[in-house]
Amino acid sequence: MKKVNYRDIQPFPVDRPDASGVAARLLISRADGAPNFSMRMFELEPGGYTPRHSHSYEHLVFVLEGEGEVLLGGAFRPLAPGDAVFVPPDGEHQFRNTGGGTLRFLCLVPNASAVSDPLK
Amino acid sequence: MKKVNYRDIQPFPVDRPDASGVAARLLISRADGAPNFSMRMFELEPGGYTPRHSHSYEHLVFVLEGEGEVLLGGAFRPLAPGDAVFVPPDGEHQFRNTGGGTLRFLCLVPNASAVSDPLK
Repeated sequence: MKKVNYRDIQPFPVDRPDASGVAARLLISRADGAPNFSMRMFELEPGGYTPRHSHSYEHLVFVLEGEGEVLLGGAFRPLAPGDAVFVPPDGEHQFRNTGGGTLRFLCLVPNASAVSDPLK
Repeated sequence: MKKVNYRDIQPFPVDRPDASGVAARLLISRADGAPNFSMRMFELEPGGYTPRHSHSYEHLVFVLEGEGEVLLGGAFRPLAPGDAVFVPPDGEHQFRNTGGGTLRFLCLVPNASAVSDPLK
């Protein structure tokens, strides 16, 4: 079991050539005993973006704060707080911050991918 | 794929004798093609509570709004926005609204349980 406020989990910069201005916090993961999937929080600076890529597993996303857009089904679609996004397995996707503040969202993934590389 | 704002998904009352003042919205589920786990949103009225129970699968929770408490590890612990909660398999748990407004949180579960009974 675990209860933690996200502010008490240190963000770490996601340092990849295909991403910019991205930090992540690992809120719940296999390290906590979660048997199936993990909860991460991503924070994108204004102008920041995650990699444009696809992979074999899904993302379940919930937007908490900020303005942005997501590549989904071949088109960029606007993102606002309260949006839930399902990125299916093998679906190309990218998240971009198009606003003036932080774009903050939860992104849940199956466990196997989450521990080795939190940006997946 | 799917992108939807939670406000556009109709909440439905959770009508169980062991719960009170609870509504749920199913944001992402197997019906959307999600292969492994589902995202639900729960809204508890002031004084509302979910069942005090346990089951074989986990919950991954994130508090969005309001004040409350969660039974976890045999004790009630305060809940505030930004809290992430991991309820392990077979862990007894209950969520209660102790504030004056809505207590709103996300609760993610493995798929098999989510479609048949969203309060699990």
